[in-house]
Amino acid sequence: MTVDTPPSPVRLKAVAGPRQPEPTPELEQLYRGFERELLVPLWTEIGDLMPMSPKSKAAAHVWRWERLKELAVQAGRIVPVGRGGERRAIALANPTLGGKPYATPTLWAAIQYLMPGEEAPEHRHSQHAFRFVVEGEGVWTVVNGDAVRMSRGDFLPQAGWNWHAHHNLSTQPMAWIDGLDIPFSYYTESQFFEVGRERIDAGERTNPEHSRSERLWGHPGLRPVSQVEALPSTPLLAYRWVDTDRALTEQLALEDEGDAATLSPGHAAVRFINPTNGRDVLPTIRAEMHRIRAGVQTLTRREVGSSVYQVFDGAGSVTVGESTWAVNRGDLFVVPSWAPFTVQATGAESLDLFRFGDAPIFEALHSHRAQIDR
Amino acid sequence: MTVDTPPSPVRLKAVAGPRQPEPTPELEQLYRGFERELLVPLWTEIGDLMPMSPKSKAAAHVWRWERLKELAVQAGRIVPVGRGGERRAIALANPTLGGKPYATPTLWAAIQYLMPGEEAPEHRHSQHAFRFVVEGEGVWTVVNGDAVRMSRGDFLPQAGWNWHAHHNLSTQPMAWIDGLDIPFSYYTESQFFEVGRERIDAGERTNPEHSRSERLWGHPGLRPVSQVEALPSTPLLAYRWVDTDRALTEQLALEDEGDAATLSPGHAAVRFINPTNGRDVLPTIRAEMHRIRAGVQTLTRREVGSSVYQVFDGAGSVTVGESTWAVNRGDLFVVPSWAPFTVQATGAESLDLFRFGDAPIFEALHSHRAQIDR
Amino acid sequence: MTVDTPPSPVRLKAVAGPRQPEPTPELEQLYRGFERELLVPLWTEIGDLMPMSPKSKAAAHVWRWERLKELAVQAGRIVPVGRGGERRAIALANPTLGGKPYATPTLWAAIQYLMPGEEAPEHRHSQHAFRFVVEGEGVWTVVNGDAVRMSRGDFLPQAGWNWHAHHNLSTQPMAWIDGLDIPFSYYTESQFFEVGRERIDAGERTNPEHSRSERLWGHPGLRPVSQVEALPSTPLLAYRWVDTDRALTEQLALEDEGDAATLSPGHAAVRFINPTNGRDVLPTIRAEMHRIRAGVQTLTRREVGSSVYQVFDGAGSVTVGESTWAVNRGDLFVVPSWAPFTVQATGAESLDLFRFGDAPIFEALHSHRAQIDR
Amino acid sequence: MTVDTPPSPVRLKAVAGPRQPEPTPELEQLYRGFERELLVPLWTEIGDLMPMSPKSKAAAHVWRWERLKELAVQAGRIVPVGRGGERRAIALANPTLGGKPYATPTLWAAIQYLMPGEEAPEHRHSQHAFRFVVEGEGVWTVVNGDAVRMSRGDFLPQAGWNWHAHHNLSTQPMAWIDGLDIPFSYYTESQFFEVGRERIDAGERTNPEHSRSERLWGHPGLRPVSQVEALPSTPLLAYRWVDTDRALTEQLALEDEGDAATLSPGHAAVRFINPTNGRDVLPTIRAEMHRIRAGVQTLTRREVGSSVYQVFDGAGSVTVGESTWAVNRGDLFVVPSWAPFTVQATGAESLDLFRFGDAPIFEALHSHRAQIDR
Repeated sequence: MTVDTPPSPVRLKAVAGPRQPEPTPELEQLYRGFERELLVPLWTEIGDLMPMSPKSKAAAHVWRWERLKELAVQAGRIVPVGRGGERRAIALANPTLGGKPYATPTLWAAIQYLMPGEEAPEHRHSQHAFRFVVEGEGVWTVVNGDAVRMSRGDFLPQAGWNWHAHHNLSTQPMAWIDGLDIPFSYYTESQFFEVGRERIDAGERTNPEHSRSERLWGHPGLRPVSQVEALPSTPLLAYRWVDTDRALTEQLALEDEGDAATLSPGHAAVRFINPTNGRDVLPTIRAEMHRIRAGVQTLTRREVGSSVYQVFDGAGSVTVGESTWAVNRGDLFVVPSWAPFTVQATGAESLDLFRFGDAPIFEALHSHRAQIDR
Repeated sequence: MTVDTPPSPVRLKAVAGPRQPEPTPELEQLYRGFERELLVPLWTEIGDLMPMSPKSKAAAHVWRWERLKELAVQAGRIVPVGRGGERRAIALANPTLGGKPYATPTLWAAIQYLMPGEEAPEHRHSQHAFRFVVEGEGVWTVVNGDAVRMSRGDFLPQAGWNWHAHHNLSTQPMAWIDGLDIPFSYYTESQFFEVGRERIDAGERTNPEHSRSERLWGHPGLRPVSQVEALPSTPLLAYRWVDTDRALTEQLALEDEGDAATLSPGHAAVRFINPTNGRDVLPTIRAEMHRIRAGVQTLTRREVGSSVYQVFDGAGSVTVGESTWAVNRGDLFVVPSWAPFTVQATGAESLDLFRFGDAPIFEALHSHRAQIDR
Repeated sequence: MTVDTPPSPVRLKAVAGPRQPEPTPELEQLYRGFERELLVPLWTEIGDLMPMSPKSKAAAHVWRWERLKELAVQAGRIVPVGRGGERRAIALANPTLGGKPYATPTLWAAIQYLMPGEEAPEHRHSQHAFRFVVEGEGVWTVVNGDAVRMSRGDFLPQAGWNWHAHHNLSTQPMAWIDGLDIPFSYYTESQFFEVGRERIDAGERTNPEHSRSERLWGHPGLRPVSQVEALPSTPLLAYRWVDTDRALTEQLALEDEGDAATLSPGHAAVRFINPTNGRDVLPTIRAEMHRIRAGVQTLTRREVGSSVYQVFDGAGSVTVGESTWAVNRGDLFVVPSWAPFTVQATGAESLDLFRFGDAPIFEALHSHRAQIDR
Repeated sequence: MTVDTPPSPVRLKAVAGPRQPEPTPELEQLYRGFERELLVPLWTEIGDLMPMSPKSKAAAHVWRWERLKELAVQAGRIVPVGRGGERRAIALANPTLGGKPYATPTLWAAIQYLMPGEEAPEHRHSQHAFRFVVEGEGVWTVVNGDAVRMSRGDFLPQAGWNWHAHHNLSTQPMAWIDGLDIPFSYYTESQFFEVGRERIDAGERTNPEHSRSERLWGHPGLRPVSQVEALPSTPLLAYRWVDTDRALTEQLALEDEGDAATLSPGHAAVRFINPTNGRDVLPTIRAEMHRIRAGVQTLTRREVGSSVYQVFDGAGSVTVGESTWAVNRGDLFVVPSWAPFTVQATGAESLDLFRFGDAPIFEALHSHRAQIDR
């Protein structure tokens, strides 16, 4: 070995085991050859690499909104927003993913915080994103020059490669959550980024009630004849709480009238969709709002791929695998791949849960599976 | 020829002509052979069969709403509604299609009329249908047991093979138009029909403000998680005027603000879509609402396939090929395949035009073409 | 009525009937009004227009190859080929379709005949076409400059809007059949046509064993990386008998070995497909080759849409609805929409049947149905 | 912190930097809060997480076939094949991926080796796989009971969730390469596995020249009418060298005749496709064979996603980013995401390169990009 050859990162050890070759000197010699040539045999790895069903590296975990908020408030005081750091965003780091800012292996979830008068500078990236607002108001996100109001309950998708900045026009700070496919893009090495203007134009720093995208696209069952192509991501930039709430309310009312509208008794759910193709709002991210009637427990379900939930309203008891937590407004938790998940609404009112996940990836690749545990 | 052999329907005549073989006795003899064997040569037919561009057998024509209404009122007095005839529907017969009830070669358009208390009996058919209401109210169409209110400006699709009946719960008669692909289904010999109950159940003879389908599907950018498959036809049974009107109003407002939202200056248009795939509401029928600002004239456009228009509001001057007509509320007119078409809003207000056509057939078969004439 | 108003084509007669309004003078007056306003009521038409299942206007019928050939030979002597008439093609005229050159309501089928040294001039049209060769050789069809040999058993698709000419380089005349969607395009008024060069270039008047399209596209499970887009029609211009025969032979051999490869016992079939999407070779035309073992009878099947069959080899007994015929090599017959169809191989060898039909139209529009009669 | 709370994996350090907040005690305190609550700020991570374009963690690297073969031969002597270890497969471990058996972040590539008379036991898994044979013969892979011969130049896809075993019926050992999406499935936690029979039935341990799948599906432009649904993965289990070679030869011949058939001058390429949809053979893996004429250098190209190449024949000079290697038959090398890649055929004959990559993942998610560097 010369100084030019870095040591091989491969480390193999011949050990006795029910599925392993006998640990002889000859085997050790073979393993040294593998290491030298940068090779790893299947037989030492298969148990971990090819399990009978997904065994997530991620843990089920809950983050409390109050603590997130406190830290965001502190960050608001001492960490400026500007080019380079780009956003005052603080990401959930799953406890078993090595301290990386990954809520799950594929998903990024962060609290973002903007002080009165602040503007997060314009950029664009291939990663798909959205904002969801559990409380507060006062910020507009400006997408390709279209200012989009952000208010409690709104879901604001941000498809990859669109220019965007955020500005806070109010006298109060505002917090919201961002969801992105950053870990997936990072792992698959498919990401692009560009910086935009330091400051958007004054004419874009406005506070309209409705964005242009909503005015063009936000009409049920209608699309502009000037825009009839299917697009891989939604052109609608805001899904308002008033609509989401009404849709959930109607599902439960239809159930009361004897119609099949809910997912299971007392469990209503809507999916945010791309109106140009009726499919998920973003190619890699599914987003839904769930409402569980007071006292109801959902079916225990497991699914390939991971999800992040945020409690929008109400109180609940969540069980993910072996873990059970009481959750309240704003709390965020993670459901890893193939982990059995159920939730019960434990408050006097319904429990509303916002959910996002990576299911479109698996559906696009024909590898999605889900099952109800009996 | 024996009595068992019917005379051949083929008739061929050897005539002189620039593209024809010389009319010799030998040719006549050949033609007799063709007739006997039920054969027709291309060279006598090609000019008609394979034109340089579509030459429609249908005429551009206008039907006046007042006259349709008068005759419908008379029919209401003397023609009962019931099993067998099924509907008190009176169809537009294009003047050059041989007296057949075809508005165009592919499309059926009729005025339907229902007296107070009447019920049109339940049936289902593979033909795709819709209702559009230019005036009046009081009728509910009951689709698979779901009662759907019909009011001015509403578009009510009726995908093939769904059970449906209509009942008039008011004290006034009501007229509306029906559009179907009956001629296309008839010509292509692909139609099925079944009769249902003579009378729907009392519990279905109701008058809800909103149908169950609207309550489940009528929320912008949202779909129930219990229903996530793509469907070839829309599950949404009513597209309400309030939404259509708002969408058109916003397109013109966006245009005023400098945005590209309209088809051409002063010409807004929305298409009714199937929310499960973002495409046309029915596999064979496209439906749209157009709004032209006062004074504006649309681009002259021609398109493969035919359309029927009804004036929803306002006054206009319509030109289809060589024909020009002044039109007013309720008037219906036909634009044949590849006929150049333009319309000018001639009243003090905007002109609103409802349109339906057969474009999805051609798009599905990759044979659609359209062009703007300069 | 003035001289400017043509007489209405609508003719209505008030007649007594189980489903008809009482034939009173008032009804007659109403019908005169309908005629005047170009209207036709549903209740007089529904029995014909909206049957319980398709009732084809077309008849089941057989044309004998020997008679077609005789007449083609005569035409070869006295009818020149050239611009205007374009092709020496003689079409099957279904006996109940009014003498029009329509084998079925949607399909054109013709024998085409080219004398030694002749060239059919170049043109292109939006109608989709194919050639199928039941006997003979010596003609090359030149598609966008690519000369494609035509030999017994070959299927040669010709997607719409490609330039094409034919030339006979041999010392023998040659006959083959053409299939097109001319009636469908005519009825739906969606057709375009352009004339090309009077004579193709000498360099294109060649006789290669394999066309360039075959050399680029004719490799199983492979496509050129330079051409990876899905195309609505096949880029492969020849499907050779050697491949078709081998595929059918293998299906029957697999059946003998106990595998599920055939449509039903003793009934093998392959479909010609577009290799860029795995679907039908043309957007409006399905083409298949069927092989029925000696003595075997196929299941009785009915299907929405019509087909034309040509016996490629062997002898059979065909039953279509009430008609039964003995058929032999070259005979052509028609199966109308929803007519029950079965065939038995009555010769000592297998029966090979070429089939083309309009099923892709119905599949694209989600209106296809088929059933096996028990 | 109690004994029940594991130490947080998050480690943050306030450091001075152009894009970082000032490293004050207050910031340190904030970071301790982040660590405690399992949070990571964007501003410390963005440079690595969201680069301007993909910066692969994987290195460009070459593995020499001779050394792989030597080690495989040794393993053949001392490592048995059987249940548990499942396969005598030895995987390429990219030098910068931490010693894991990943050729690239998404792809597994291994040499597999089977001794005379050996049988690798039956199993199935959701991971998609293929085999490619650079030399040798004698092994049949048995897929759902269908024995598929493996010979030099053959590409043998193995879609997820099909049962498969391998057996060596010859008197010689045989080596081949396996490609799978194991790292992608592992990372996205979407994998399932089942063990099958210890020994396949004697009747399946056969050595047919052609598998049943080839006999049913291996005919150009044809598919069995008994199997007309689109399938996400190919039903064709062998793509034979004779076809691949002929397709490449024809592309170069067509280029010589002046036709556009190759990717660039002197660079022919075919893609292995799923005949039921014309798309990639597997949902997550693209496979191609490239042929570069002697002396020719390909365009320098970069693409999102990674590839593994194996030299099938000839000699070449490969440049990936900053690395250049001379390569010969059997050598394997890796092209990481977005790395510029070019190859020159340096021998007297053409250079044939087998390639597989993960591009279908990015195309399905609409995030694929490629560019030619000038």
